[in-house]
Amino acid sequence: MNFADRLTAAIEEKGTPSIVGIDPRYVMLPAELKHGDTPTRAEAASAVEAFGIRLVDVVAPLVPAVKPNIAFFEQFGWEGYRAYMNIVARAREKGLLVVADAKRGDIGSTAEAYAVSLFDEMDVDAVTLSPWLGEDSLKPFFARFDRGKGCFLLVKTSNPSSADIQDREQDGGTVFTSVAGLVRKWGDDFIGERGLSSVGAVVGATFPEQAADLRERMPTTPFLLPGYGAQGGKAESLRNAFGPGGTGALVNSSRGIIFAFAREPYAAEFGEDRWEDAVRAATLAMRADLAGAVPDATWAGA
Amino acid sequence: MNFADRLTAAIEEKGTPSIVGIDPRYVMLPAELKHGDTPTRAEAASAVEAFGIRLVDVVAPLVPAVKPNIAFFEQFGWEGYRAYMNIVARAREKGLLVVADAKRGDIGSTAEAYAVSLFDEMDVDAVTLSPWLGEDSLKPFFARFDRGKGCFLLVKTSNPSSADIQDREQDGGTVFTSVAGLVRKWGDDFIGERGLSSVGAVVGATFPEQAADLRERMPTTPFLLPGYGAQGGKAESLRNAFGPGGTGALVNSSRGIIFAFAREPYAAEFGEDRWEDAVRAATLAMRADLAGAVPDATWAGA
Repeated sequence: MNFADRLTAAIEEKGTPSIVGIDPRYVMLPAELKHGDTPTRAEAASAVEAFGIRLVDVVAPLVPAVKPNIAFFEQFGWEGYRAYMNIVARAREKGLLVVADAKRGDIGSTAEAYAVSLFDEMDVDAVTLSPWLGEDSLKPFFARFDRGKGCFLLVKTSNPSSADIQDREQDGGTVFTSVAGLVRKWGDDFIGERGLSSVGAVVGATFPEQAADLRERMPTTPFLLPGYGAQGGKAESLRNAFGPGGTGALVNSSRGIIFAFAREPYAAEFGEDRWEDAVRAATLAMRADLAGAVPDATWAGA
Repeated sequence: MNFADRLTAAIEEKGTPSIVGIDPRYVMLPAELKHGDTPTRAEAASAVEAFGIRLVDVVAPLVPAVKPNIAFFEQFGWEGYRAYMNIVARAREKGLLVVADAKRGDIGSTAEAYAVSLFDEMDVDAVTLSPWLGEDSLKPFFARFDRGKGCFLLVKTSNPSSADIQDREQDGGTVFTSVAGLVRKWGDDFIGERGLSSVGAVVGATFPEQAADLRERMPTTPFLLPGYGAQGGKAESLRNAFGPGGTGALVNSSRGIIFAFAREPYAAEFGEDRWEDAVRAATLAMRADLAGAVPDATWAGA
């Protein structure tokens, strides 16, 4: 089954386009999971693994997908990489779609090795990829889309310096609008029954006007919208990033959910001991926030 | 000591700007290292680790640096990631500079995690990075340059589809010439005693005219030139990618060296049993080829 169709079905089943980013930082973990303030690399990896597994268990009934970012695991060496693989496996067992946030991008023969790593070995559902090296760097991933896989290409990222290259003016638009045209074109071969492609785009929620413009330029492209919550993106400003019926977008929150226990109002209500309850409450709040912003959505009220 | 100064010193000490890319493919390994045709992931990782360690030992006296590409290890999961770390450690023990070919590129907080992984945990000397997300995605790496670290940013890659985005016309140049201007500017803060910056550029050896143009645009930028050998790049066509005295460039060969035993003239002379002798012979041939192409180099005759 086509990835975009699987994604739309999962969003409608769970009743929300929320995706939880799993970006653990050791120093921010609840004390019960830590091995003191100066852990070995293996101890730190073990702690973030336990945290990630329990996060998955809490959010599995509430969201269609998780997005573990591999950088936060690689910082603990191979022990961290193993923790990542184990969290991915748990998420899949729990019926979640897994978007591996890896932002890989290399020439074709190397891209094939990354595709083996992420799609064949870990069996994730989708990956984030850089488009900078062009189509031949993406083909090894596209070649696995007939197995239900998908990707999200970095079109316009959520960080301030995304302007350095992405916003340069060109051909009456910008570099990122040119890339949007390529992403739409590359996606034409992978459109599912619901009219969306398995070639998605990362579009920073921190730039809502650009997200709305990109929605018009890429009508068949699923958007992954990072930057909601801790990075400042607001639900109502994202309304125009959705397609008809509120389809075609995933809104990501990472720190705002996984470390909710350290932020108000959750810190006062739950505190560190009840960090999983804080995760649940923050996820429910995000669900309500998005449902309010996109009231006509096919997934609303599920 | 500044990375660019360390690099120039290593090139002059070894008498060549050759860098060996360690991109192992299990199916191509010498039979003595394989665990049959259907290895477990752990067996495959063990085989590529043994291959990489022995490669490092063979080339350590002959070249200043190695460039292991992490994708080829990640395809064997965490066992492969561990193999990568062990090969990096061996290369450092043998006095080689290590360029981690990882092509990472993410927003600032995530880039910090990648910098921890590569510079703090593995302690590699330099990394390849994507510039697509702009300066704030690079700053966590730059922040470690006072410890002698460096990077090579993907300005113009060696693959055919690099034209898709990099070659688009813009501002009287192309996107990649704009990026070259940024790379030069970012590098200004990190120029060493020999006049070169610790912010380098990846420039495909498969596009010699563009490499010569980029040398003029980035006079203080060390170039990492992939594509020599198996990808078709010729030594003489690279002459203009070097700076005065043949400084400021590393020429990479991967398959042409590491799997030399499977190619003529080495296959006939050495065969698979003497694969290490084939690696040595291919490395010496590359050294001679580059010395002939850049006869006035400061490193020639060392």
